[in-house]
Amino acid sequence: MPKYLMNTWYVAALSTELPDEGLFKRTFLDIPVVMYRKADRSPVAMHDRCPHRFVPLSMGRRDGDNVVCAYHGLRFDCSGKCNHNPHGNGAIPAAAKVRTYPLIERYGFIWIWMGDAAADESALPDYGPLEQGHPNGVAHTYMPRPCHYELITDNVMDLSHVDHLHGEIITTRGQLSPQVPKLIEEDGGVAVHWKWQQTPPIMIFNDFLPQPGAVARHFVKVSWRAPTHIQLTIGATQDDNAPLDYDSCTSQYDLHTCTPETEHATHYFFATRRNHHEEDGEFNRLKIDGMHQAFVDEDGPILDAVHKTMGTSDFFSLSPVLISSDMGPVRVRRLLKQMIDTQKAS
Amino acid sequence: MPKYLMNTWYVAALSTELPDEGLFKRTFLDIPVVMYRKADRSPVAMHDRCPHRFVPLSMGRRDGDNVVCAYHGLRFDCSGKCNHNPHGNGAIPAAAKVRTYPLIERYGFIWIWMGDAAADESALPDYGPLEQGHPNGVAHTYMPRPCHYELITDNVMDLSHVDHLHGEIITTRGQLSPQVPKLIEEDGGVAVHWKWQQTPPIMIFNDFLPQPGAVARHFVKVSWRAPTHIQLTIGATQDDNAPLDYDSCTSQYDLHTCTPETEHATHYFFATRRNHHEEDGEFNRLKIDGMHQAFVDEDGPILDAVHKTMGTSDFFSLSPVLISSDMGPVRVRRLLKQMIDTQKAS
Amino acid sequence: MPKYLMNTWYVAALSTELPDEGLFKRTFLDIPVVMYRKADRSPVAMHDRCPHRFVPLSMGRRDGDNVVCAYHGLRFDCSGKCNHNPHGNGAIPAAAKVRTYPLIERYGFIWIWMGDAAADESALPDYGPLEQGHPNGVAHTYMPRPCHYELITDNVMDLSHVDHLHGEIITTRGQLSPQVPKLIEEDGGVAVHWKWQQTPPIMIFNDFLPQPGAVARHFVKVSWRAPTHIQLTIGATQDDNAPLDYDSCTSQYDLHTCTPETEHATHYFFATRRNHHEEDGEFNRLKIDGMHQAFVDEDGPILDAVHKTMGTSDFFSLSPVLISSDMGPVRVRRLLKQMIDTQKAS
Repeated sequence: MPKYLMNTWYVAALSTELPDEGLFKRTFLDIPVVMYRKADRSPVAMHDRCPHRFVPLSMGRRDGDNVVCAYHGLRFDCSGKCNHNPHGNGAIPAAAKVRTYPLIERYGFIWIWMGDAAADESALPDYGPLEQGHPNGVAHTYMPRPCHYELITDNVMDLSHVDHLHGEIITTRGQLSPQVPKLIEEDGGVAVHWKWQQTPPIMIFNDFLPQPGAVARHFVKVSWRAPTHIQLTIGATQDDNAPLDYDSCTSQYDLHTCTPETEHATHYFFATRRNHHEEDGEFNRLKIDGMHQAFVDEDGPILDAVHKTMGTSDFFSLSPVLISSDMGPVRVRRLLKQMIDTQKAS
Repeated sequence: MPKYLMNTWYVAALSTELPDEGLFKRTFLDIPVVMYRKADRSPVAMHDRCPHRFVPLSMGRRDGDNVVCAYHGLRFDCSGKCNHNPHGNGAIPAAAKVRTYPLIERYGFIWIWMGDAAADESALPDYGPLEQGHPNGVAHTYMPRPCHYELITDNVMDLSHVDHLHGEIITTRGQLSPQVPKLIEEDGGVAVHWKWQQTPPIMIFNDFLPQPGAVARHFVKVSWRAPTHIQLTIGATQDDNAPLDYDSCTSQYDLHTCTPETEHATHYFFATRRNHHEEDGEFNRLKIDGMHQAFVDEDGPILDAVHKTMGTSDFFSLSPVLISSDMGPVRVRRLLKQMIDTQKAS
Repeated sequence: MPKYLMNTWYVAALSTELPDEGLFKRTFLDIPVVMYRKADRSPVAMHDRCPHRFVPLSMGRRDGDNVVCAYHGLRFDCSGKCNHNPHGNGAIPAAAKVRTYPLIERYGFIWIWMGDAAADESALPDYGPLEQGHPNGVAHTYMPRPCHYELITDNVMDLSHVDHLHGEIITTRGQLSPQVPKLIEEDGGVAVHWKWQQTPPIMIFNDFLPQPGAVARHFVKVSWRAPTHIQLTIGATQDDNAPLDYDSCTSQYDLHTCTPETEHATHYFFATRRNHHEEDGEFNRLKIDGMHQAFVDEDGPILDAVHKTMGTSDFFSLSPVLISSDMGPVRVRRLLKQMIDTQKAS
């Protein structure tokens, strides 16, 4: 009985992580996977385990679009089929196959389909805005973390913590907590909307507003869909008549997404597209540094400590005291649990 | 079913360990606890876990005599009651409480009551002599150790090992082992008394005796009471007519006490009061250095190795070969086991 | 139910590892053992655990041919019997005995009998050739490895991996893999024989052949016997009429043998005797360096990774895809499993 949601797309890697040459390994949902790019640059993923003596194929070498096991030289093509056995008469045992995993490269990420059902490309969420605009106006990063993936989902789905935990770069100056955010459920997903004013404006936008330091209206919309993908749009404006949306404000359009490595470790991926100062590719480094400062230095130790306390206990079994801002993450936890339980029953 | 003796006082910290400002964390009996001093310096202890999302409160900050959780800003007073919720309408959920633990500060230690019954101050043992005499004549220390706490109790309750394991500073030169010590049970406790002669006298007293290097009569009384407190008085005299007691000899009055961190780690606390060279506060450093040399360097590796072998096995289930000097520690182990089993049954 | 084959000889140490003075500790089959040499240099092994309070005897000290426990001074003779109790009246409890393990020192190794049956010296395999020839013509080494011991047995019983994994020093240049080696079962053991030609000859022999760099005929015979002993003879010749045996070729006669430390770690011992360049004792260093380069640097990481994947799973339960060269190791695994299961049933 799988403990993760299966037959769904997770992010496996940043596009930039997977080199043209060589082999790349990473574990998803407890399964070790080896990845590489074929000569045509299309990505391949397969179980990182030779079916002969269980050596990780990632310890081996490339031979064209094939992988050769380091130990006894069995060679596998990119469909996982053994296509060369240097031993004895060279006959290839029928079982000499390695499971492969469907991949799609899109939005600067490589997405992997985990599950036994046929991969459904149409089920890949549309995060098209990441690819729209100046090519220098988008940045990506990867932040592995030794905690359960749902703690990171919780963290993004309840942004009221930004008032309390985060420092000068992204602080919302206590303006989110007094709100009961708007919760929206549609298409099997969960969204939370917040609107507020703050002075000075949030620092990530302050210098790009007409009157830096002066009051601005802000909005953020976080929109989860299974299993672990959260699209977050945040913006600020000093125009009293401007609608609170990406195009009308100084804004960014982000994707936060987690892939469980195990129940005790998470691959956290992040992308951010902006509608201002788009052409400055150097500015991406500042955006990513800010994200790392917030997540790695500020959220990270909190989440690790909570994980140490909770282990793999069910959150609700620990009788948490819930507050108004928990609406979003709690709804997400319940939906995901229901989906996982449903697949177990089927 | 608790594996430790509950509803009893353990030592939580040296008084000097708990600062006036900030938060101090330590785990007792598998329970993480955060401690701090109120503005009036009185100490507070509570479960180191916010009831909202299980973040250690010790990662948060002080707000007067309150503690504020780092993650979402819930604030708790020193009785563990939430007295500020910055979220939504600010209503405080009835369940938003943190368990607190009664503390008493006495004898240079902070004592903590672990258990569900009401704290019984009268159950705190009387170690008044630690507080009598010149204020420079007493020293305290803390020695954490990765072994089961009963191994440390065994170690102090059978001092015959001093003949074999310890070096020049506290060696008893083979004079304890040939004895069958006197075992006394009273008031639910267990005491072991030894008397002997040695030449030269034990080095901790040698320089304070009239004839350094010459034969002296010695005594030691070790007196355990549940759960883990051992009061040890040791002295030496070269006066043939002097009674063998603290006041009549060159003596010290010590407390050895252990608090289980877990079944695999122990907080070992020590205090030593002397009736000689009392005014020299600098001399305390020598006393504590000697204790560390004996326990940390000599006993410690032995106890760690035994713990590695025994794990959490019941000592008697391993069929130990017992010798005469085991009388004290064996009686203590049996009494403590009986007390723990009784509380399980109730 | 023992998980290892018992009542059999394993190698405990190189003769050179066991010093004349002091105590040497090592764990075999999950059992900590302390070893030492008596004044007459004969080796002794006993359970590394004082029966009193379970302190490792290896933390104690020698007293002639006795061992004295560090903690309370109990002294044990080399038969494991307590022969001095410094406590009380000095009576020695009847149970104050430490289990000893029979040892034989032979072929440059110290062999230990693990099991409850009486040690059967006649069951020690005959590896006499290690002791024949010039005393400088034999070298020994010890290579501990954090993997299951059967993975090392597999590795030596299927040398086809040498074609693929190993570098210039011992490469067989793809000549073994195309063969189906000859499998021979006799006397409860399993042997695998390979013959091949390669150019240049295997580098360990190349410089000692009449025409370095020119084609040579090669052979290797690997012969396993329970539990873990593999005798390997390898040779090369450029004489078309020479028989392929140790004496007729430039050859070496090796012993590879493993002793489980636990199910997760192995003591791997190796000896190599050669029939050429025998008098050069310095050359032994090159032989051992070559072995370490092959095993520690090349095989080792592969075996560790496989162990991490397999844990203590039964190899066959993982449905390995077997190829022709697996005949030898698979036969050995099945025989050993049968022997272990038989002893469990009895």
